[in-house]
Amino acid sequence: MDHAQQQLTEQVFYFVSELYAYGVREVVISPGSRSTPLAIACECHPEMKTWIHPDERSAAFFALGLIKGSQRPVALVCTSGTAAANYLPAVAESHISRLPLVVLTSDRPHELREVGAPQAINQVNMFANYVHFQFDMPIADGTQYTLDAIRYQLQKASQYFVGPHQGPIHFNMPFREPLTPDWSRTDLLTTHTYTLPKYQKAIDPTPLKQTLKQIKGLIIVGDMQHQDVSQLLTFATEYDMPILADPLNPIRRTQHPNVIATYDLLLRSGLELEADFVIRVGKPVVSKKLNQWLKRTNATHILVQNSKDIDAFPKKPDYFYEMSANDFFRSLNTLESTYRKVWLKHWQQMELQAREKITYHQKQALDEAGYISRLLDKLDHTDNLFVSNSMPIRDIDNLYFDCEFGVYANRGANGIDGVVSTALGMAVHQKVTLLIGDIAFYHDMNGLLMSKLNDIHMNIILVNNDGGGIFSYLPQKEAAAPHFERLFGTPTGLDFEHAAHLYHFCYKRFSDVQSFGYVELNAMSGTLYEIITDRAENYEVHQTLYEQLSEVVNVTL
Amino acid sequence: MDHAQQQLTEQVFYFVSELYAYGVREVVISPGSRSTPLAIACECHPEMKTWIHPDERSAAFFALGLIKGSQRPVALVCTSGTAAANYLPAVAESHISRLPLVVLTSDRPHELREVGAPQAINQVNMFANYVHFQFDMPIADGTQYTLDAIRYQLQKASQYFVGPHQGPIHFNMPFREPLTPDWSRTDLLTTHTYTLPKYQKAIDPTPLKQTLKQIKGLIIVGDMQHQDVSQLLTFATEYDMPILADPLNPIRRTQHPNVIATYDLLLRSGLELEADFVIRVGKPVVSKKLNQWLKRTNATHILVQNSKDIDAFPKKPDYFYEMSANDFFRSLNTLESTYRKVWLKHWQQMELQAREKITYHQKQALDEAGYISRLLDKLDHTDNLFVSNSMPIRDIDNLYFDCEFGVYANRGANGIDGVVSTALGMAVHQKVTLLIGDIAFYHDMNGLLMSKLNDIHMNIILVNNDGGGIFSYLPQKEAAAPHFERLFGTPTGLDFEHAAHLYHFCYKRFSDVQSFGYVELNAMSGTLYEIITDRAENYEVHQTLYEQLSEVVNVTL
Repeated sequence: MDHAQQQLTEQVFYFVSELYAYGVREVVISPGSRSTPLAIACECHPEMKTWIHPDERSAAFFALGLIKGSQRPVALVCTSGTAAANYLPAVAESHISRLPLVVLTSDRPHELREVGAPQAINQVNMFANYVHFQFDMPIADGTQYTLDAIRYQLQKASQYFVGPHQGPIHFNMPFREPLTPDWSRTDLLTTHTYTLPKYQKAIDPTPLKQTLKQIKGLIIVGDMQHQDVSQLLTFATEYDMPILADPLNPIRRTQHPNVIATYDLLLRSGLELEADFVIRVGKPVVSKKLNQWLKRTNATHILVQNSKDIDAFPKKPDYFYEMSANDFFRSLNTLESTYRKVWLKHWQQMELQAREKITYHQKQALDEAGYISRLLDKLDHTDNLFVSNSMPIRDIDNLYFDCEFGVYANRGANGIDGVVSTALGMAVHQKVTLLIGDIAFYHDMNGLLMSKLNDIHMNIILVNNDGGGIFSYLPQKEAAAPHFERLFGTPTGLDFEHAAHLYHFCYKRFSDVQSFGYVELNAMSGTLYEIITDRAENYEVHQTLYEQLSEVVNVTL
Repeated sequence: MDHAQQQLTEQVFYFVSELYAYGVREVVISPGSRSTPLAIACECHPEMKTWIHPDERSAAFFALGLIKGSQRPVALVCTSGTAAANYLPAVAESHISRLPLVVLTSDRPHELREVGAPQAINQVNMFANYVHFQFDMPIADGTQYTLDAIRYQLQKASQYFVGPHQGPIHFNMPFREPLTPDWSRTDLLTTHTYTLPKYQKAIDPTPLKQTLKQIKGLIIVGDMQHQDVSQLLTFATEYDMPILADPLNPIRRTQHPNVIATYDLLLRSGLELEADFVIRVGKPVVSKKLNQWLKRTNATHILVQNSKDIDAFPKKPDYFYEMSANDFFRSLNTLESTYRKVWLKHWQQMELQAREKITYHQKQALDEAGYISRLLDKLDHTDNLFVSNSMPIRDIDNLYFDCEFGVYANRGANGIDGVVSTALGMAVHQKVTLLIGDIAFYHDMNGLLMSKLNDIHMNIILVNNDGGGIFSYLPQKEAAAPHFERLFGTPTGLDFEHAAHLYHFCYKRFSDVQSFGYVELNAMSGTLYEIITDRAENYEVHQTLYEQLSEVVNVTL
């Protein structure tokens, strides 16, 4: 082993062993030459699981799925050049979703930068707008200085791997030829592990004293990423607070009597809502209508988020508490609150009626919601439903109640990109069914390769209305009518049965709701269930439901 | 029309009319809501051609193809969020390839930034590492200040649309609701046109006087992007200078007797090359061997590039002239040079023998080179061959001589991403055949949608060796043998016939060279010709050719 190879091996193996110590257990590698040292170090690590994915865009979203499924940081490895640039969509998503994505981009050494060398783009700080931490590594030189630098920078970066401030980090790693490390030195891949500091903050709830005495109070919970919510539920129970629960929060599927799930439809159907105060916990909710209401209400707005970045959307809060939900609600116990039985009763009755009407309507409906409603019947507590952005997440927001399974989505940047890959990554760790529209499915078809290569079983419900269904609900449909179909409808006319065959998925097509209702989801191998629907009809049926619900909301709260 | 809509219309229509005035004739739009004002303005412009592409990554590479085919700046329009992030690979490529890509990303207005609003990532300067110019536009406010700012910033940006300093630019454009402009106001879409300044620089060639008197001189020409080369050829003719011509430079296909095409194979086969000076024109060449020689030679190194960025790779030049090739060689006329008949003769003889041997070898070869050689026979002067990075461009570098058609590739960042889309974009303006390997084809399969939706005819020669063929030529194959197939070979086992059906391509599979030799390329509709080859066999046949050529190079130049 020559000297340069020895230095390379020591540095890269040390780096990977530290990564492991900080909790990284899985690495998604996209093939390349410059990344050889990292790829081999990960591959030779006795306890690191490597995944190989030739499309870096899908690979990065696949890693997001692994994070969602395992609750651990996951690393990405790619070669130099535009390979790294393909990571950007998932890096942006992980920033807003606060997922610990560890991006390792291999680079040319400094003597080959900015000189027109092949496959060399400027990778230093290339994700600057989105990562919590970025560092351009030194070339392996065998000195303790460099090893100390690696250790220190990884320690710094690791603050974003667990705890309240999770998010993507980026190490750009230049390697000089020869690129092959001495892979027999697996001894270098073991090292210490670290305990990370606990984040804590005390709160003084006194300023909330008067607010909490008012009657019309609401708790609104968005995505909280596996935080414990026992104190929240205790508080709501004791003081009769309705909980408007987003589908991405597990509270939505608890049988807690205070949970309200139909608020989006109620607001769409004309509910006049007045409140004195709102305690909002976690990320902003999916419901556009509830966010619009939050923006215009004069209710006192208390925001509780376990993050230093305030998600002020849809409105700047009157009070902001940077802490866990449990800590917040526990501290409220020191205050006197109000009992509000009548207020809660109103909500519970309305919720009951709405659920009945929605359920009845869905049983009759022949449109997308009819299919989705039958899909929900097929899933049990062992399932997880991964939902694409655009229409599916909105339909689920409206129809997901009395269900036992969890709901997941990429709701950081709400992109339709990378949905297939994220769902497949999650399916590595948990049972997942994907609900997705045709445009999002097309966008990340390459992501299906991981299922074929690694036998990752996942059923896909593809709602194909041949184009961008959500745009029918926007004002552009009327205001730009002559240009609508070309600019927004964008039908592709693709027959996705071919995609199913390409990636070894079983395939079934449905064009009526009844037959879909009878089918049992394939438990043995991944199946693509393509559902052919019609954008115009779907739009009409939604309008009917809003009309029917308008009877329920003929009250002022 | 309300006031806000009027202001929006005026500003966006003015912007698009200015874009047109600066030479933009085509826009690739990816559907979205926030981008409505831009999409409609482009759609309503009487002379702007719009393309609709639902995958932003492929859309951006498609635009690069339109630029290559039309020699004009081309604009991209997308909605807010990760949509824009999907542009990054093509933006990086266009930076190094110096292609005038006009990136228009729609954004949320300032009140919805950094507050956790949906589909809002930080888009300001998001392409900072790669664009020549970036500007975050003001919101439409109906003032002359804002219109003046748009005009001024576009004027500034336009310096990168034509001339020697071409490259990508980025306008981030926030829009407030309502998003639909008044599309009847097409009157706003006409405006002045501008004449752009000419770039010129005088040179004093005196320092080159002694150098040019030496015998062993070479001209090495890389990609020069449609620059006129008449003076270069005149100089070479008069002073007997061999021209080592890259396949991406049209000089390679001229019948000029000084053109040397086989240098890469000659160097691979052991040619001992000594030279006194080298005049290198344009971008670095494809040949790794020639670049390695350039790096180690002591020959005086003169670099002529029509760009302010020096592509010093593979070595810092002794002299750098920032000017057109014609201006440079014209100025040399004032100097005395040397006649070097014997030196040239040596080269010409070696070239003749090498071409004979290569041609003979290819006629026998049953590997990928055998197929490619037969493909070259099928193309005439009306054709253009778009070549993927990785193995295809290297094979073409070795086999492309005595041909009449042009060769194109994405040789800025040398990525395997976006190749299908770039070729299809070019096929809009010129007849194109695509030569591509299976990994690159898989990476941008989504790009095929444009062919289906717009009837863009293009034949594709897909060389399928089930994995990354180029890696067999790297030292990692031996040095990391046990990990090679998983980390580098990466077979996908995909049956691409399904992809052909999905996108309405005709399909033919070949597993022997003879039958491919007999086939005529489909002139009526796009066909996918899948060629099944074997990585190991291919590697062996390449080695045989190097051995046969070693007889030719048994000279020292």
